[in-house]
Amino acid sequence: MQPQFDYAQRTEGLSGSAIREIFKYGLKEGMISFAGGNPGAFALPHEQVASLAQELLMTSGRQLLQYGQTEGYPPLLELLPGYIRDAFNADVTGEQLLVTTGSMQGLDLLLRVLINPGDVILTESPAFLGALQAMQASQARLVPVPCDEDGMDVEALEQLIRQHKPKLLYCIPTFQNPTGRSLSLARRKRVAALAAAHRLVVAEDDPYRQLRYRGEALPSIKAFDEAGYVVLLGSFSKIISPGLRVGFMAGDAQLLRKCCIVKQCTDVHTANLNQAIVAAYLERGLLKPHLMRILPGYAVLLDSMLEGLARMPQIDHYTKPEGGLFVFARLQQGLDARELLQLCIRRGLIFVPGEPFYPEGGHRDTLRLNFSNADQAQIADGLQILADSLNALKK
Amino acid sequence: MQPQFDYAQRTEGLSGSAIREIFKYGLKEGMISFAGGNPGAFALPHEQVASLAQELLMTSGRQLLQYGQTEGYPPLLELLPGYIRDAFNADVTGEQLLVTTGSMQGLDLLLRVLINPGDVILTESPAFLGALQAMQASQARLVPVPCDEDGMDVEALEQLIRQHKPKLLYCIPTFQNPTGRSLSLARRKRVAALAAAHRLVVAEDDPYRQLRYRGEALPSIKAFDEAGYVVLLGSFSKIISPGLRVGFMAGDAQLLRKCCIVKQCTDVHTANLNQAIVAAYLERGLLKPHLMRILPGYAVLLDSMLEGLARMPQIDHYTKPEGGLFVFARLQQGLDARELLQLCIRRGLIFVPGEPFYPEGGHRDTLRLNFSNADQAQIADGLQILADSLNALKK
Repeated sequence: MQPQFDYAQRTEGLSGSAIREIFKYGLKEGMISFAGGNPGAFALPHEQVASLAQELLMTSGRQLLQYGQTEGYPPLLELLPGYIRDAFNADVTGEQLLVTTGSMQGLDLLLRVLINPGDVILTESPAFLGALQAMQASQARLVPVPCDEDGMDVEALEQLIRQHKPKLLYCIPTFQNPTGRSLSLARRKRVAALAAAHRLVVAEDDPYRQLRYRGEALPSIKAFDEAGYVVLLGSFSKIISPGLRVGFMAGDAQLLRKCCIVKQCTDVHTANLNQAIVAAYLERGLLKPHLMRILPGYAVLLDSMLEGLARMPQIDHYTKPEGGLFVFARLQQGLDARELLQLCIRRGLIFVPGEPFYPEGGHRDTLRLNFSNADQAQIADGLQILADSLNALKK
Repeated sequence: MQPQFDYAQRTEGLSGSAIREIFKYGLKEGMISFAGGNPGAFALPHEQVASLAQELLMTSGRQLLQYGQTEGYPPLLELLPGYIRDAFNADVTGEQLLVTTGSMQGLDLLLRVLINPGDVILTESPAFLGALQAMQASQARLVPVPCDEDGMDVEALEQLIRQHKPKLLYCIPTFQNPTGRSLSLARRKRVAALAAAHRLVVAEDDPYRQLRYRGEALPSIKAFDEAGYVVLLGSFSKIISPGLRVGFMAGDAQLLRKCCIVKQCTDVHTANLNQAIVAAYLERGLLKPHLMRILPGYAVLLDSMLEGLARMPQIDHYTKPEGGLFVFARLQQGLDARELLQLCIRRGLIFVPGEPFYPEGGHRDTLRLNFSNADQAQIADGLQILADSLNALKK
């Protein structure tokens, strides 16, 4: 007899990630993937990390293998303000920091500290699937904020704030997942001003900003946050390694103190060795040369993707990001990305249809294309499969 | 102006760990600590981990630095059933496993999947402080189960189950924190039977069992779990390294599937490198020789502690554990462990008073003494300080 469990209400409607379901197809040998958000294998510095790990364990091993403090590994906490000033144009102090086990944990902690069931969260639409899942699990009511080529429509945002009195706004302002779009400078300032005026906490999730292949870097929303309502969620997953699981939160000290207490009850602290490896990248100036090495490789893949899409008449529109890992496309009216996916899978390509990224559903004519986890030959082959499948797709 | 946040109800009454507050005293140079639950520095195999980390990153680095699956690193998942059979006498399959970022995360996931605000959780009393904090943060109502030298009083437990219809029972059956006591074999069987009869989920937190210095190992409660209601929370923190943050849950596949989905929204997966290091210990047979090396060192420290306590007339009773990291003592009637702590701190020793470990409060005459994070000379000096302070303590 199977055991019977009386689950908590918050688990109702909790389902696994749609992407992870699609990934099951991708397990087949030889399948080309435009589906994930994984860094390219060429961008993972395993030799450098191997040598750092060994050195750090030999010199500080007993400290690294011992329990650490929940706030973070002290040398990393000391380096983060300089890194954040440099990469995000924002000034934060040590008390305004919490190291997290990936930036997803930062969002989770924020949700646990702020959200009661039924509270409203405003989110970009389309939005990062993992964040949507986490917000749904918090039993919040999600209200989508419409976006255009410059990111969130701030007029609509202000309207929605007045209408719904939300607890939180979630956004990825730079090279957004799934669209690759960036919030314009003027809108960043406006979002910070709206947060201050309405005492609205903004979760500014910004993991892709250093994957910029052209154009000028924009300051973070946090850079304009004089009132203290913006919480920056940072990550080293896309620029060093996702497997290490190191991210951070930067925000108001009182709010982060609460997050820290919840983190004590969750994973106690982020693994020390992993934090020390990231600290070594910052302290020794290894991050910038590493980025210089990997960015040209990503730029070439993005350009191949954009050139390929330009040649497909059934693609009505696609974003033209200056960085990040994703391009978002819209098919001609009447075409369905799920049907396209079925045709592509038969030919050996997977991608993610756009619909699950929209909290309001619909938009079945959209798809997300990742270009970072394939080499140039695979991008070319994948684009050919996409073109062939589009030709085979009936209106 | 300070920002104003409208926190979630679950954060009400959430406070930092009492131990961590006491630790602030311990930061002073030269202070002897009987306060923490840290492994001894001699027990942390930093050279071995350094060499493994380097080797694993050079051979499988690109897999380790990439995203991993939420369930766990596949080679570790393959090794865990053998390890659990060997160390816990319990049979589990791959679908009944989830790797966690420390065993505290296992408890947290279980709470999130099972507990609605107001649900009753039965817990040993006294109990592990971190678990009490996590359970309080879940907005559960905690009901203490009285314990004696053989662990939980199972007659009282059955009464409490009938009376409160609890969702969960939390216990550390082996070398319990804070008491060092172990649940007897007969009671382990009884707990498994009660869980089955009342469809009660048991969180069996068992991180200390392999730190056994004498006597025969007892099977886990999970070993007697035919109905599937026992969830074993395992940890490599006390036997390899807490800084690596690797633990596991072993329990019903459906229940763990829910936990896995919540983990996706939390830290996505436990860091791969850390899992691979643990897997190497299991695969290469490194764990047992490592334990053989460290157990005698801990045994000597425990014996020194017990001999010292035997000579203190103001100590009315103390536990005599066969393993683990803690001894729990009760002072003569009328003596207060907090006052004792103040006297000890002045002389250079910290420990944790017993009161915070009791969900019902009281028991101000008790204290927890950890012996693993000091060397023999420090144990001797600390015991002298304890004896002197007891002599100075007024009734």
